[in-house]
Amino acid sequence: MKTENRTEGWSRKLYLELAPPSPEDNVSDQERILRALREKYGEAYGKAGCSFQALRKFYPLCCQADWKITVLLVWNGGSWELADIEPGDTAGEHYGFCADLGSTTLVGELVDMNTGEVLWQKSVFNHQIAYGEDILTRIFYGKDAPEKLEEIRQATVDSFLELFEKMEQDTGVSGEQCASMVIAGNTTMTHFLYGLDAFCVFSSPYAVRTLKPDCYRGKELGLPLKGYVYCYPGQANYLGGDIVSGVVETEIYKQEEISVFLDIGTNGELVIGNKDFLVAGAGAAGPALEGGVVKTGMRAEPGAVDRVQIENGQVKVHVLGETPAEGICGSGIVDLLAEMFLNGWIDVRGRYVEGASEKIRKVDGELAAEYAPGLFFFQKDIEEFLKTKAAAGTMVEYMMGEMGLEMKDIRRFYVAGAFGTHISKEAGVTVGLYPDIPRDRIILPGNSSLAGARKMLLNRKLKEEAEEVLDKMSYIQFGAVDNFLHLMVAAEAIPHTDIRRYPTVEKELKKRGLL
Amino acid sequence: MKTENRTEGWSRKLYLELAPPSPEDNVSDQERILRALREKYGEAYGKAGCSFQALRKFYPLCCQADWKITVLLVWNGGSWELADIEPGDTAGEHYGFCADLGSTTLVGELVDMNTGEVLWQKSVFNHQIAYGEDILTRIFYGKDAPEKLEEIRQATVDSFLELFEKMEQDTGVSGEQCASMVIAGNTTMTHFLYGLDAFCVFSSPYAVRTLKPDCYRGKELGLPLKGYVYCYPGQANYLGGDIVSGVVETEIYKQEEISVFLDIGTNGELVIGNKDFLVAGAGAAGPALEGGVVKTGMRAEPGAVDRVQIENGQVKVHVLGETPAEGICGSGIVDLLAEMFLNGWIDVRGRYVEGASEKIRKVDGELAAEYAPGLFFFQKDIEEFLKTKAAAGTMVEYMMGEMGLEMKDIRRFYVAGAFGTHISKEAGVTVGLYPDIPRDRIILPGNSSLAGARKMLLNRKLKEEAEEVLDKMSYIQFGAVDNFLHLMVAAEAIPHTDIRRYPTVEKELKKRGLL
Repeated sequence: MKTENRTEGWSRKLYLELAPPSPEDNVSDQERILRALREKYGEAYGKAGCSFQALRKFYPLCCQADWKITVLLVWNGGSWELADIEPGDTAGEHYGFCADLGSTTLVGELVDMNTGEVLWQKSVFNHQIAYGEDILTRIFYGKDAPEKLEEIRQATVDSFLELFEKMEQDTGVSGEQCASMVIAGNTTMTHFLYGLDAFCVFSSPYAVRTLKPDCYRGKELGLPLKGYVYCYPGQANYLGGDIVSGVVETEIYKQEEISVFLDIGTNGELVIGNKDFLVAGAGAAGPALEGGVVKTGMRAEPGAVDRVQIENGQVKVHVLGETPAEGICGSGIVDLLAEMFLNGWIDVRGRYVEGASEKIRKVDGELAAEYAPGLFFFQKDIEEFLKTKAAAGTMVEYMMGEMGLEMKDIRRFYVAGAFGTHISKEAGVTVGLYPDIPRDRIILPGNSSLAGARKMLLNRKLKEEAEEVLDKMSYIQFGAVDNFLHLMVAAEAIPHTDIRRYPTVEKELKKRGLL
Repeated sequence: MKTENRTEGWSRKLYLELAPPSPEDNVSDQERILRALREKYGEAYGKAGCSFQALRKFYPLCCQADWKITVLLVWNGGSWELADIEPGDTAGEHYGFCADLGSTTLVGELVDMNTGEVLWQKSVFNHQIAYGEDILTRIFYGKDAPEKLEEIRQATVDSFLELFEKMEQDTGVSGEQCASMVIAGNTTMTHFLYGLDAFCVFSSPYAVRTLKPDCYRGKELGLPLKGYVYCYPGQANYLGGDIVSGVVETEIYKQEEISVFLDIGTNGELVIGNKDFLVAGAGAAGPALEGGVVKTGMRAEPGAVDRVQIENGQVKVHVLGETPAEGICGSGIVDLLAEMFLNGWIDVRGRYVEGASEKIRKVDGELAAEYAPGLFFFQKDIEEFLKTKAAAGTMVEYMMGEMGLEMKDIRRFYVAGAFGTHISKEAGVTVGLYPDIPRDRIILPGNSSLAGARKMLLNRKLKEEAEEVLDKMSYIQFGAVDNFLHLMVAAEAIPHTDIRRYPTVEKELKKRGLL
């Protein structure tokens, strides 16, 4: 029986066989339970608080169960709380929940707290979308209107409830059966979760309401959990708990060697450092990488071109879901650009080379390449992409420059996000999205926000670790940087104005006679 | 301005003038407040948690108040919590509440947490009475019926709400304006407050649900307070928080000299000890002292005889409220018996001496004394009283005997309860209710439960002190004692079978020619 397994999580379920009260030993029910915990598991357990709900369950449950009971202990961030008791040995059924609370999607996982195993994962759209597709619309909707802010908060909670409903349908485990929850979200998302005005996130002086929220009971937030909800703390308005979660997941702050941790989406967030230092920054990047502003761009869903190859002047594409192509997603865009560049269809500035291929022609007066039947990638699409990748690249370049670092000093270059996972490293390097370093140094950890939330859920001590990471981390506001725009223009070339930074691309171009 | 006064209470209100956020200093609102607390008041304050309600009030309140705000910090039993913020300096309006939760009445006090001053005090009937005049009826009403237990819990809460309503009418201060509450009540009362089955209090093996309940938020219990409710912990089923509160109030555990702390009502509770030891016990006493079973007995209300003197064969009485006598209360009974004894109306066994006074005659076939026009004190009434005083006296005697103590070893003999306050010491000694020791050693602290609750409210560190007292205290179950009944019979005499224990009474009797 799995009564004792992992011991470090945010909750524990412990089976106790207690001697029933007798005239010789008539301590109170509460003390009887705490005493057993103290003797068996140590003082920290023996000092557990007792929730009002659990207190009221002692009788007649303990008696009826002949004092063979399972106690659920939840961590409140600093100490244990006896949150529930159940008759018999139910220690094997011990669940927790972790989530990546994104502005578009909420990804949740049901975790077996005994084994650490992920039992279920799903994502739902964030119900906040009803108040605006983009964050700023939502912020303005709730601004200075407490009742509207409460609507947004409720929408956030409803997103979780939808996830729990799906989870129960799929697994039979309900949200109420989950003890604790760890959430990783950016600063705006955590503000919305708590019903806080988030205009501060985007307006000077960027002093937000909270970056290190306390643990709150699930019930207090409107969630069915028996224990507490912990949100990853953030470093600054644009560097939220989602990034800190990724940093904790990758443990770059523990290593001798220097790592770069980059997360690019609508915003780009960057952390560089090792066990001795951590510098972070964030700036607007652009939705191009997620297919946002590209005319035929789309999410990585059925119908999306996700892989592109150009052979003998023909564009060969892979489409998700084995259906006709309907558009192109991030990894497809990077592949397409890399291939067009290596085949001389676009130049170093990203301009279409007229006549380089029959696929390149004017559509509605604008040059475009037909990458799939009837689907075109426009000159403007390329420009959008290059701005985005330049923004990301410039953040890295600027910050490394400030610290006197060169790319050769970097042992690990993490590109976080579901996005990064699907991009081919080779194509990413070719277009200058990734640096030209040995490919094994480029690490694509996937949804490291979610992974960091899971890691935290399974190890409550990481709360202190995350807080230490924040204490250690210094933050640069890129907007304030002088030569940022200058650097960015240089980075808008493919792969970069300074081709010497991309030796393997240079070599490939030479091989292909393009240089 | 009274912004800083008492610092030891269960809550603090602190006025802060903060620099508004700026680009150079854009920490979060939460950190801005905590940082100021940390710098000004120390790390314990800087680590304060933040209630969900307070978090949601930061904006726009701080901004609108130009960052001149007053924070309410409440103690949760182990750390501070930021429970509320208000604009401007409201630190002068800082209230707390303490209560003696009795089975019949609930006495509450509004306390100025800055000065320690009691601003208001009132008592209301405990609404639980609707479910039974006596405790056992209530216990059986709720036994094994969660919904009925919840009714009793709600009745308990309603009693507090009635008090708060009266308080608001009288003072303008509402329950919501009170930060924290400390309650002293016996084990059954605290069980009912939390909605716990209390049958365990009266049935073997006397293992109750909880003796050391956690602090719960007022809101969680249905009370309007902003902070936490703390109930004094108890030692055993019959030795509850009301007694521990009295012990903390009198500080007998701090003194070199040995004290006796006795509380007599329906039950008698006793604690004997000093800084080195504490022994406690409890047993059924009887309601006689509160006028309960005496035929014309009544509470100390208008119409009650509370003072009696016999002069020249005439009974002179004082009646509360300047109205005709309707009955007799506890202090009247003790006076009456002492006077009748000293005038030879009753003998050492408490039997009426026929012919000793014209006031003594048979009524309904039973001897009785007419102590006021048409009001009689019957032979059975005397017997009830003597049983009660014998029970109390025997507890003291037995316990002192067990510890090898004699009355001369006792420096302070506390008789707690509103009851004790009104009994004349001299009469109490004469009837053998109090020991015959120098009168200044007999101390009548009044409602020491309530006083102990107030003392705790104003000094959160006493929580640990109360817990240490409990750790130190050993408990004797008198029912289990062999020669208890034997001792009790001896104690049923006036003042005692062994008159040598009462030298001043012996002297008086001799003076009066009765011995």
